[in-house]
This record gives sequence, C-alpha cells and structure tokens, in this order.
Amino acid sequence: MWSLPPSDTVLHLLSMVAFAAQAMTAALAAGRRSMDWVGVCLLGCITALGGGTIRDVLLGHYPLLWVANPSYLALTAVAAFVTILIARVVHRLNLAFLVLDAIGLVVFTMAGCDIAWQMNESLPIVIVSGMITGCAGGVLRDILCNDVPLLFRSELYASVSAVTGLFYATAFGLKVNDEIWTALTFVFGLSFRLLAIRYKWEMPKFVFNDERR
Amino acid sequence: MWSLPPSDTVLHLLSMVAFAAQAMTAALAAGRRSMDWVGVCLLGCITALGGGTIRDVLLGHYPLLWVANPSYLALTAVAAFVTILIARVVHRLNLAFLVLDAIGLVVFTMAGCDIAWQMNESLPIVIVSGMITGCAGGVLRDILCNDVPLLFRSELYASVSAVTGLFYATAFGLKVNDEIWTALTFVFGLSFRLLAIRYKWEMPKFVFNDERR
Amino acid sequence: MWSLPPSDTVLHLLSMVAFAAQAMTAALAAGRRSMDWVGVCLLGCITALGGGTIRDVLLGHYPLLWVANPSYLALTAVAAFVTILIARVVHRLNLAFLVLDAIGLVVFTMAGCDIAWQMNESLPIVIVSGMITGCAGGVLRDILCNDVPLLFRSELYASVSAVTGLFYATAFGLKVNDEIWTALTFVFGLSFRLLAIRYKWEMPKFVFNDERR
Repeated sequence: MWSLPPSDTVLHLLSMVAFAAQAMTAALAAGRRSMDWVGVCLLGCITALGGGTIRDVLLGHYPLLWVANPSYLALTAVAAFVTILIARVVHRLNLAFLVLDAIGLVVFTMAGCDIAWQMNESLPIVIVSGMITGCAGGVLRDILCNDVPLLFRSELYASVSAVTGLFYATAFGLKVNDEIWTALTFVFGLSFRLLAIRYKWEMPKFVFNDERR
Repeated sequence: MWSLPPSDTVLHLLSMVAFAAQAMTAALAAGRRSMDWVGVCLLGCITALGGGTIRDVLLGHYPLLWVANPSYLALTAVAAFVTILIARVVHRLNLAFLVLDAIGLVVFTMAGCDIAWQMNESLPIVIVSGMITGCAGGVLRDILCNDVPLLFRSELYASVSAVTGLFYATAFGLKVNDEIWTALTFVFGLSFRLLAIRYKWEMPKFVFNDERR
Repeated sequence: MWSLPPSDTVLHLLSMVAFAAQAMTAALAAGRRSMDWVGVCLLGCITALGGGTIRDVLLGHYPLLWVANPSYLALTAVAAFVTILIARVVHRLNLAFLVLDAIGLVVFTMAGCDIAWQMNESLPIVIVSGMITGCAGGVLRDILCNDVPLLFRSELYASVSAVTGLFYATAFGLKVNDEIWTALTFVFGLSFRLLAIRYKWEMPKFVFNDERR
C-alpha cells in the first residue's frame, strides 16, 4: 500500500510530520522532568520510533525501519532538539500538536497493519500490529518518565487505534480499491480521535481499592 | 514434552487456567491504579503473555505464541475484562488465585524449559528460559504500574522458578520417563511455592543506605 | 577487531572487569531499594548484560552473548552477590568503581560498534549500536529501580559513548591499523569520561514547566 502514488506519497509525508510531532511532544515531557539535551533527543527518538521498533521485534521483521534508514533517527532527534529552543511556541501550539499526534496515531496504525499484512499474519495480529505501532512509543515515553502510561489510564487512544485498524483491515478482506480505502480510513480514524478529544470521550475506569491489603 | 498425552493435555489445560489467572490478578493491579477498561485488558494480556514473549525474543524463537495463535490474546483480554465485573469476588478468592498463580509459575517455567531444550540450548539457558517465562510477565506488570518489581523485593518466586527449572532439567540429562518427571516437577514446584507462601519463607534482603550520598 | 592479540586480550580482560563492575554498582542500587538476594543478582545480570542484549535484539544479531556463553550470567550474578557481603568496601571504593564503570562504558561502546560493523551496518547505526551497548543497561537498571533514568538527566554519559563511537568508527573509514586505533580510542574515551566526572561537565538541561497544565 505504501508503494502506491499518490496516497502513498501523502501518507509518507504525513508520517514524516507525525514522527517529528511525536518527538516534539516527547521533548516537552522530557523538559517537565528536567532532562538534559541528550536525554531530550533520546526520548524523542525512542518515543517516535519505539512503536514500530517493538512491532518489528515482536513480529521478527528485520531490519528495523531506523536501522535500514538512519535518517529517521536524525529527523526525530533534530525535532526534539528544536523543541528545546521553541518550547513556548510548541506549548502554545498545543492544539496543532494534538492534531499532529492524532495524525500520527492513525498513520502509524495503518503502517503497522500494512507490515503485518505483508507478513501474512492473521487479522487479529494485523490489528494488534497497528495498535503496537500507534501506541507503544508513548508507553515507552511514560515508562522512561517514570509515569503510569497515559495509554492505560485515560482517553480513547488505544481504542481509536484498534477501531482504525479494524476498519482498515476489513479492506484487505473486501478487496476494496486501496487508494480510496486508505483515504477513508485516514479520515475516519482522525475524525474519531479528534471527536474523542473534543468531547472528552473516555473509557470507563476500573477503580479497585482493597482496604484489606 | 507438550506433545504427550495425557500429562500434556493436563498441562495445556492448566496453562490455559494459569494464563487467565495471571490476567485476572493483573486486572486487579490495574484497578488499584484506576486504569480504564482498555488499560485493564492490555495489562492483562501483557502480564500473562509477556514472560513467554520476552523469552522468545531473547532466544530468537519466532513466531511468538500469541502471534501464531491469537486466541491467547482473546483469552487473557476477556479474563481481564471479566475481572472488572467481578472484582470483589476475585479479591475474596484471593487464596484460590494464589494457588492458580503458583500453578502458572510452575507450568510456565516448565514450558520455558521445554522451548529452550527444543532449541538445543545449554542447561543454564534452559533454566534461565524457564525463569524468564515464569517471572518476566509480572515484572512488566509492575513496571507499567510504576512499581519496583515485586519479584526483586520479596517472596520466593524467582527462586521457586529456578529450582523448579533445575529439577525439571535434570530429567533431560537422566532420560527419565517424561510423563512421570513432568508430574513430579509439577507437584514439587507447586508444593515449594505454596509452602513458601504459607510459611512466609523469604530471601534475605540486602538493605544498603549510603548516608553520604 | 576482537580477534587480534594482544589488544584483543587486553580488551577482553577489561570487559570482564567492566561486566563485574557494572553488576556491582547495580547491586548497590538494588540495596538502596531493599531488594532481596535474588533481586540483587537479577538486577546485576540485567544491568551488565542488558545493553548488549537490547543491541542484539534490535539488530537481529542472534544468539545473544549470554545465551551462547552462559558464563557471563554467572560472572555478573556472582559479582552482584559478592557485593552484598562487601557493600561497605564497594561503597568506599567509590572512585575505583567510577573508573571501572568508565572503562565499561568505553569498552562496551567499542564492542557495540564492532558488532554493528561486522553486520555491515551504516556509520550512524555503528555509532548508535555502540551507544546502546554502552548505555542501555543502566537505563534498564533505573527503570527496574523505578527512577527516571540517570542517562537522560545528567552527566556526560551518552555523549561520551557517542563521541567515542564516532572517534572509533572513523578508523573503519580511514583503514588505520586496528591495534593502534583501538588503544587510542580507549584512551580518548576513558579520558573524556573521567575528565567529565572530575570537572563535573554537564549537558545543559531543558527545564520546562507548563503552569497552565
């Protein structure tokens, strides 16, 4: 799917932007923990590239994206570093970054599905592969910042990824025209995520206190 | 060893129960952190399947169990989800879950030893493979809950896994009848773990304070 | 490069010492968290061997060092265990351990570069491979101790690894005599790290507070 112009070209550009955006929001998280400049760049790279890396390791899909193409390391490290210089601006553009992060979630999910599909994995694994690609980078960021991962606590994030993956994957079965379906999935996933942010949709929480502990 | 009836069938059933039990106790841990429903299911899957996943990645043993057979994902996610509905019951059955968790520890340890053995690894790696399979899922759970892993702090858990693996692995050398040895190891490991819980056996702790820090 | 005497023999001996030293400092960290004896040994193994393990998994370089040669597990576990007995001595030898840790950083970085080079990776990946080998073990230690990784917060550690790797890797291009270059890199990296410790060189920190959060 990634080899088809022009939706491919668009998706590729969008994923570049999304890599940079995820590195930049990770850099802000690093700043909240007073990390040094190297730490900021490392956290940016790990957050932006971590999801795809975990997916590839779990599926045995070598070489990893950034090993085959180290320019991704440069892109994300530079994006994180630039954030140090323009932190106030990035913070004020909060809304724009929410949209860019949502684009990243959807594009990475679709890329993850594509990879698993190319490896002839079953439908559930195609969807899980999309979820890992879209979500695991943020989990690594939160672990390295010593937080309980946001993904597990709030917001429709993993759910958006799962539903987007399911929507996208049905196209493989239906043999729908790739271009159209890719565009449809993108619009659907992005809308879902942005609506979830706008109206503060949340999964119910499971609160359990065992007084006797 | 997993291919021999009837001990195989029994072990397979026990491991299904153990997967579910580990997902359910992980779900309670998620509830203590007020995770949302998706987080509960993710933590259940990661805890129950994480040990075997880390083992397979470290040994280069592809495809992973749950990639080849995604029904394990469904089993553990559903078990975690059901726990949300019956949390009080699960908590009251604390004792039953301690036993189920102990069964999981022993069964997973044996399965990990089997896999390493099939890959012709050396004896130490067979035992380490069993330990990783039995213990690493709980470590992932504690990292994601932002705790210092329980495994490193208290109880005979890793030790039970190591001793069970050693006991089990000697059979490979001694060419003892598989069925009997599997059953013996199971009884031995389970008894060891339950006695350790009952009599609060603990490893000595290493407490180090450097006032000068 | 590892196959050439005598710098090879020296490097091999140095790396044995460095494995033990990293396991011992990890054991002190475990003691600060009151881990039990098994936890101390596990943390020692994971810290000392974790960097190379993550590198090998990311590069798809199997079998892992300690799987092929389990004596590394014994070395690091024993070193960690011995630390329990002589914690005060180890702590008083703080300075010696800083030097040993610096030796480990440089030797592991060079070993990581060698491995990536043997796999015909590109120059950036050779350097990243060195950084992962030199630094990732400490990150795992800090995650398991529930800290924000020290690597991300302070000191020239990742930077020393990166610069050492760059210095070392240029030799591959220049086709300099291996022995001499290895020795030069070692002296350069070690001096850099020790000077950084001595004069408290630090990367600037990125401190970001968003009051409006």
